[in-house]
Amino acid sequence: MKSVKIGIIGLGNIGCGVMEILQRNSGLLASRLGASIEVVRVADIDPDRPRDVTVPEGVMTVDAMDVINDPEVQIVVELIGGIEPARSYILAAINRGKHIVTANKALLSTHWSELSKKAGAKGVTLGFEGSVAGGIPLVRTIKVGLVANRILSVTGIINGTCNYILTRMHKEHMTFSSVLGDAQDKGYAEADPAMDVDGVDAAQKLAILVNLCFNIPVSPEDFPYQGISRLIPLDLEVAEDFGCRIKLLATAGRSGGEVEAWVHPSLVPEGHPLASVDGIFNAVYIQDDNLGPSLYYGRGAGRLPTGSAVVSDVVSCVRDILSGAVERIPVSGYRTISNSEPPMKLAGNTASEFYVRVSAHDSPGVLSTISGILGKHGISISSVIQRGRETDPGGGVPLVMITHEAVFSRMLEALQEIDALDVTIGESFLMRILMTS
Amino acid sequence: MKSVKIGIIGLGNIGCGVMEILQRNSGLLASRLGASIEVVRVADIDPDRPRDVTVPEGVMTVDAMDVINDPEVQIVVELIGGIEPARSYILAAINRGKHIVTANKALLSTHWSELSKKAGAKGVTLGFEGSVAGGIPLVRTIKVGLVANRILSVTGIINGTCNYILTRMHKEHMTFSSVLGDAQDKGYAEADPAMDVDGVDAAQKLAILVNLCFNIPVSPEDFPYQGISRLIPLDLEVAEDFGCRIKLLATAGRSGGEVEAWVHPSLVPEGHPLASVDGIFNAVYIQDDNLGPSLYYGRGAGRLPTGSAVVSDVVSCVRDILSGAVERIPVSGYRTISNSEPPMKLAGNTASEFYVRVSAHDSPGVLSTISGILGKHGISISSVIQRGRETDPGGGVPLVMITHEAVFSRMLEALQEIDALDVTIGESFLMRILMTS
Repeated sequence: MKSVKIGIIGLGNIGCGVMEILQRNSGLLASRLGASIEVVRVADIDPDRPRDVTVPEGVMTVDAMDVINDPEVQIVVELIGGIEPARSYILAAINRGKHIVTANKALLSTHWSELSKKAGAKGVTLGFEGSVAGGIPLVRTIKVGLVANRILSVTGIINGTCNYILTRMHKEHMTFSSVLGDAQDKGYAEADPAMDVDGVDAAQKLAILVNLCFNIPVSPEDFPYQGISRLIPLDLEVAEDFGCRIKLLATAGRSGGEVEAWVHPSLVPEGHPLASVDGIFNAVYIQDDNLGPSLYYGRGAGRLPTGSAVVSDVVSCVRDILSGAVERIPVSGYRTISNSEPPMKLAGNTASEFYVRVSAHDSPGVLSTISGILGKHGISISSVIQRGRETDPGGGVPLVMITHEAVFSRMLEALQEIDALDVTIGESFLMRILMTS
Repeated sequence: MKSVKIGIIGLGNIGCGVMEILQRNSGLLASRLGASIEVVRVADIDPDRPRDVTVPEGVMTVDAMDVINDPEVQIVVELIGGIEPARSYILAAINRGKHIVTANKALLSTHWSELSKKAGAKGVTLGFEGSVAGGIPLVRTIKVGLVANRILSVTGIINGTCNYILTRMHKEHMTFSSVLGDAQDKGYAEADPAMDVDGVDAAQKLAILVNLCFNIPVSPEDFPYQGISRLIPLDLEVAEDFGCRIKLLATAGRSGGEVEAWVHPSLVPEGHPLASVDGIFNAVYIQDDNLGPSLYYGRGAGRLPTGSAVVSDVVSCVRDILSGAVERIPVSGYRTISNSEPPMKLAGNTASEFYVRVSAHDSPGVLSTISGILGKHGISISSVIQRGRETDPGGGVPLVMITHEAVFSRMLEALQEIDALDVTIGESFLMRILMTS
């Protein structure tokens, strides 16, 4: 039986998942491919760390360049994450004509153009299924399954840690910090949770989705994003009263001749398919011109789900190699920039209905002052909610307002003015409302 | 710009959808492929029927062999449906070395081995994304996205007509026949609805899924299937009382060293992701060894959703042609029969908990007689529901029983005996209960 030889850089959590799948399902993969996938080189800076997978004798090295320079290796799997040295390793491997498989969202979301151009120039494949939505075959769905369709919008729950926290805050009426602590104990949140709970991870994945769906090279700096750490139980209660669930949504869509994108905690109406996606699960809801809505749901993280995505990319490279395919699908899914693709909307110009929570002293005229400022900035209020006289964490009385559709930059200007008032305490809190037209 | 030439046999509803997508999204497709897709031959027995797509001058013919024999045509799209002459056309095109794209579930579910072997022998691709779950890229998800994973079970709502009828019966407390009439008026059900409501369509699609997921060549004759036409509003009410929705499920899964498959109306617990799939939508829930559960949701029928799947298959062929790929992925996704694949379980040996409704005369001792017969066949009852004294359509009093897990063949034997009793009226009605272990 033929064998295709691969090398892996980074034998951490995902790397071990990839090894486990390649070993456990080797018979299945061989029956599908008519060939075997052989891991001939594995690099890790800590080769002796205890691991629950066996690396064959003579395969392990501490030097990533041993993987890249091995003439037998046709596919290099990069799983160390982060920008450098991952970027340099990938570029070096591309230069040597190796196919690349990576799950590195930080790198792809900031160096998309460089990497996709280099891979294109060298005629190698760069697979990145594992970088967005873990095990859900989302990248393939967009590049292959929905290839005939113009994507109108993509809206996802793409950070499992945040979704786990929000689900427990909703179901158990717990505070953010108490769920976070528990999630850290259970391994669902990192010791340093900032990348997840501050929305950075979701923003990186969204940048990749914008590149894929709209062929616009963006990075997370090109759109607004915000996390969930400032949510309080009151927000979830009010959302529930409005028949909504709160989810950290990442969305991008065509709007008025442009593409707008954002990551924000959002009120999602209960009837929407994303509202019932709970726990660590991810789901992505796509609207396109032929299929209308479609939804893809599954585990967005973890060694086996992400490992499954990485191995599926390896298999695609193996299929290309065995079938003699050269440059079968470009990294972005596009050969040429289409003139019909709209430009990116400036972050400030994105518009939504908003949920605004202000902490105020309990004194007369506060609502009038605040609504006056909003009105001055062209923002009209559809509902005001004031729940008894309970105080919020800042010591004030929480005042919640739901607005009609408003432009993000004007909302920020209004809130800056509101936050500077003597009658308000601390910083106001903002969420989007998912509009289901 | 390069151009790849295709021919279409059958310009009906789906055929027009394919033409519309190729024309409307020609710029998008060209930017993705770096080449254009040109329809150079279209065959239809009724070329002059009014259609809302334009076929270029000189392209239309009444003879399918004109498409197959055209030396320019590299990909033949078969959209006439049914077994013959579709089978002969496809075989003729394969013999001439053309790639095939079809959405013909009736043909694939009965002639899978023949077609996949012929395509393999000639080294051509046979794409059939449109044959299951319409626009949802499910075939690709199984053959490519989840390629590294051993599929444990696949459970789907894959007939939109039935799901539309069941949704309205549930929400509007209507009878089967009144919803069916309305669905026919709205174009959601055929004038002859038997293929849909009797479960044949779902069984054909399930046969294709079994081939794909388990590499076992089966046809609908190899597993039990049943439709929804005998459901009465009481069934939906009882299901609701048990916290369940009724769905026509098609399922196949590994069970005790074998693969069991069936299509039955089923009670689905409200918390299950399939319970909330409403209206004409399809959804397929897959369990595998690496990803655990994943779900794929979208429109399962219609000219544009199915057209989108057909065009995605055409694009995959075009990508193979342009990249020089030969025999990149076999029809079934497998190169060799794996010895580790389990055999198919005999239809009668499939096991579930069951919902049984019997129509009986309102006389003493009936329940004792019926439960005695069930017990004699090794079937134990977990609940009995008798709703007042209202009569069912047969003039008797409906008696509903929920059983513990039981073997299908024994259940059929018991029901045959129960239906022969003097105290029962007409034929009993059976549903499965989806077990969520």
